[in-house]
Parts: sequence; C-alpha cells; structure tokens
Amino acid sequence: MQLSIIKIGGNIIDDEAKLLTFLDAFAAVSGKKILVHGGGKLATRVAEGLGIQQQLVDGRRITDAETLRVVTMVYAGTINKNIVAQLQARGCAAIGLTGADGNAILSHKRAHPTIDYGFVGDVDQVNTPLLTSLLLQDKTIVFAPITHDGKGQLLNTNADTIAQELARALSTSFEVSLVYSFEKAGVLMDADNDASVIGLLRPAEYEDLKARKVIFAGMIPKLDNAFAALRSGVGRVIIGRAEELSLLLSGKAGTTIQHE
Amino acid sequence: MQLSIIKIGGNIIDDEAKLLTFLDAFAAVSGKKILVHGGGKLATRVAEGLGIQQQLVDGRRITDAETLRVVTMVYAGTINKNIVAQLQARGCAAIGLTGADGNAILSHKRAHPTIDYGFVGDVDQVNTPLLTSLLLQDKTIVFAPITHDGKGQLLNTNADTIAQELARALSTSFEVSLVYSFEKAGVLMDADNDASVIGLLRPAEYEDLKARKVIFAGMIPKLDNAFAALRSGVGRVIIGRAEELSLLLSGKAGTTIQHE
Repeated sequence: MQLSIIKIGGNIIDDEAKLLTFLDAFAAVSGKKILVHGGGKLATRVAEGLGIQQQLVDGRRITDAETLRVVTMVYAGTINKNIVAQLQARGCAAIGLTGADGNAILSHKRAHPTIDYGFVGDVDQVNTPLLTSLLLQDKTIVFAPITHDGKGQLLNTNADTIAQELARALSTSFEVSLVYSFEKAGVLMDADNDASVIGLLRPAEYEDLKARKVIFAGMIPKLDNAFAALRSGVGRVIIGRAEELSLLLSGKAGTTIQHE
Repeated sequence: MQLSIIKIGGNIIDDEAKLLTFLDAFAAVSGKKILVHGGGKLATRVAEGLGIQQQLVDGRRITDAETLRVVTMVYAGTINKNIVAQLQARGCAAIGLTGADGNAILSHKRAHPTIDYGFVGDVDQVNTPLLTSLLLQDKTIVFAPITHDGKGQLLNTNADTIAQELARALSTSFEVSLVYSFEKAGVLMDADNDASVIGLLRPAEYEDLKARKVIFAGMIPKLDNAFAALRSGVGRVIIGRAEELSLLLSGKAGTTIQHE
C-alpha cells in the first residue's frame, strides 16, 4: 500500500495564500498520507511579543524552557490545529499529533559534548502500530515538530528528521514516498536556473555531480539524508516546490531520488 | 463497559503541584477514561503579554480573532500537550485532541440575537465512532476546549459543555460517569461548611432543597445541567474536588447525582 509523507517548511506556513493552495493540493492526494509541518516565523513573532530573548550559542538557536513553551504553543496549537481544521473543510479526515500523543514519537534530549541545545529531541522510536492503525482507518496524520522523552518532557524536534524517521519506520508496512518541500523547483544543474531541474537522481549520478561540484553546500546534507532514507527502506524521496505537489508525486516536477 | 469522563477547571491547571497530583490520580483510574480540561489563567497572561485587549460586551468575554489565536495556542498547545506528556510518563496512553482532530466535535459559531460572542462554538455533533475506536484501543483521550465548524474555522468552546456532550454521545456505547471538578468538596447543605457535603442527590431531593433555598445561585444551572445529562442517558454525574478523584469515583467523596 502506498503512503505519501510530505514535509512542508516555514516558507509555506508563513504565507496564508500559499498554505491554503498547498492544502487544496494535499487534500486531493489519493491514498494514505501524512503531513509534517515545520515552524515558520510565527514562533519568533510570538516569542518577541512575549519579550522572550532568543538564545544563540555559537550561532545556533537554543531551545530554553521559555522557547519550548512558545514553540509548543505555536507548532502544536496554532499551526497544527489550523491546518487540521482547513483539511477537514476539504473533506480530508485529518488528525493532528505531536510525538507525545499516543507516544507517537519517543525521543531523548540531545546530548552534545560542548553545546547544550536545551530542550531539543533526537528521535529514538516511532510508534508504528498506532500510526498504521490510524492510517488504515483512513485518517490523515498532521505532525507538529514536537516530541517527548516518555518522562513528561516535551522536546523541540527538527521537522525534516521527523519526516525521515516516520518514512523509515512506516516503510515496513507501506511503500513510502517522502516529499521534502523546498523553495526551489528541485535539485538544479545550475543553481540560478529553475528550469535546470534534475528529474531523477540515483547514487552514481549523485557521486558524479558532487565530484563535478554541480551539487554543493547546503544540498549535500539534504541529499545524504535522502539517500540514507532510501537505504533504510523508503521507496523514493522527492524534493521540489510544495505548490507543485501533485506534479511532484507523479514525477512530472521536482527531483526524484531513487536507490537504483 | 464503564467510561469515566472527568472535567478539570482552571483552579487545577493554574497550580502545577495540584495538577501533577491530579494526574497521578487520573492515571491510576482503571478502565476507559477521557479528560477534558479548561483554560486557566495562562491564556490571559499570554494575551496580556502580547498586548491583546480582552473584549467585554455586557460583562461577557468575547472571543475575537486574536483571542481565538491565543486560546488555541494555550489550550491545544501548551496545556494539552503538557498534560499528555505527563500522562505518558505515568504509563497512561494519552492522546490529545481538539474537536477539529478527526472531526471529533463539530460545532457552529454561536448565533445570539443581541450579543456577538465572536469565535465561540456551540456543539452540534460528537464523532462517537472515532472516540469509541480510540477508547477500545485503550487510548485515554485528553480534550482541549476548542472545536471546529467543519468549514475551517476553529471555535472556543466551554469545557463543561464538551464534557457533557461527550458523556451524552458516548452513553450509547458505555456506562458513563461524568465528573465535574470543583473548588468545593461537593454540593453542600451549608455553603460555609465543607463537611456538609450531600453524598447523593436525586431529582426529588433536588427539588426539595431548591424549594428550601439550601441550593441556590450558581449551583442551580450546574445541577440543572447534571440532571439534563442524566435524562439523556449518562449513568451518574459526580461533583467534587479533583484532588479527591478516586474517592469521587468510588462514591466516598463529593456529590453523586443520579436519576433515581
């Protein structure tokens, strides 16, 4: 059975018109599906409004207790519930979850030798039976990027990572397509030309393009993650614009990354 | 099959120590259970922090768009997810929902001839199959007092009403005990004496106590609602202190209200 796991980022969430257009397209995707959303700028605006200073250590954002409270509000409250209500209005039986709900995603507070990231979670386990049961009841799951440690602590967790961990775990029961939405049309041969999208990327081509420095910088960790997902059983990973969702899923837009 | 539906109010939510003690007791309740939580003072503090003025019309709080955004954040985000994480830590398979999630509770924006309450919902329908299915999978449902109209609009909804509507709807499949937590030990013979709790209240006694003005003022709508719930199939309604939850459910504390 096919399952589409689609991650949308802040660029969609921050633009109400774009978000509603995306949700039209998402609601129209046939079959089982999961939406994972990131944060966007609302959390920063709410934190600023409440006078909560952003903690930066070595240029990295730290999730202190106050910031965790804000992201829990904004991600699991405002963003998640508005997306769920909009999907319901589009005839899509959406249910919003954090990792704490039904123990859907268990994580641990990140341990780092030199940086204390604060209340940031690294994923340990996905509750595959719960999610499979909801999907088989034709529920569409909408994940907010918040998990928990099983000891009562909520943890701020990267939405890309959540999408990837869900894809890995659910690949045992479903044929998973993992879609990462992105500001660009896909992986480009020429970074300045949106028409130069690489339609299909396989390991040999990736190694070649890296060697030729066509693919560089920020794309490398993204693609390394995509290939890691494929090695752990995910059927295909697609990178492209959220606005072109149906074309991405049909292979007519974006970059499809496959194992062979 | 027995089902306990327990509503806790702001007095418990605002006091972290009281809340954790209550959650210990709630996690220990055997059988199927649902927790409905209200708001507490955090929403007011967040609204003040963000400079959102409270709208009052004829002394009534109005849920304007900004206030709806704050209560969605605080109720469905902060409060709901922290309760869920704390219950998970206590071995209770909690899952947090608003009425939008899985279309659990459908409502409509309140229409009133003279007062515009804003984004306030009056309940139309409870999704009994969804809730029954989750309860039969041994999930404990934690409801935030937010519903939706099925057209994409979230609505602020009274937590007492949500608890009552859930109890009515689920009485077709379960033998429901509906517990309203309260600042007092129960319905009192003498309003100034906590030891004067009326243990059992039936319609004839209620009429008698109303006629004798032993029961008056704010208790009357509460008890009218309780008797209405009983008439619609709810097994029993219990009013008492959340801190005495296990004693309330075993009939050893609080006031049990029964049809006959």
